[in-house]
Amino acid sequence: MNGADILGYSASAVTVFTFLPQVLKTWKEKSAKNVSLMMFVIAFVNEVMWIAYGVMINNMVIIVTNVIMIAMCTIMIALKLRYNKE
Amino acid sequence: MNGADILGYSASAVTVFTFLPQVLKTWKEKSAKNVSLMMFVIAFVNEVMWIAYGVMINNMVIIVTNVIMIAMCTIMIALKLRYNKE
Repeated sequence: MNGADILGYSASAVTVFTFLPQVLKTWKEKSAKNVSLMMFVIAFVNEVMWIAYGVMINNMVIIVTNVIMIAMCTIMIALKLRYNKE
Repeated sequence: MNGADILGYSASAVTVFTFLPQVLKTWKEKSAKNVSLMMFVIAFVNEVMWIAYGVMINNMVIIVTNVIMIAMCTIMIALKLRYNKE
């Protein structure tokens, strides 16, 4: 494993945590008024595409990264819809 | 170019637009109270890592994707800081 590989895996590991602060903030504040639902819908569709791509080229890093992200994304969409109603 | 390549490029193209709805929503509403600053700070640092990785492995798709995303991310951080003050 060379320097570029290490950087690539590190970047993937950080990507996984992108949506976590938003999920935690929304959970705590019980409001997502200013959060764009469309952003997470685009991300959700995009992650389905990335997972399909990962399966097609048999790349576990892409699959695992996007399965975690789609889980966060699903929680965020559920929180947004729930607090929008209230 | 096979089916997997086409799906990979399409997924990259969609990824680029992930933050756009949030930027437009914040711009219109002039508020980002419920938006997590930390999410965009993590994304910013992450995109720097991806750009460095793209340069190291000489992959233009990774470089271009993340240059566009870091631009969106920078606008979003600027909007968040601006409307937080008001």
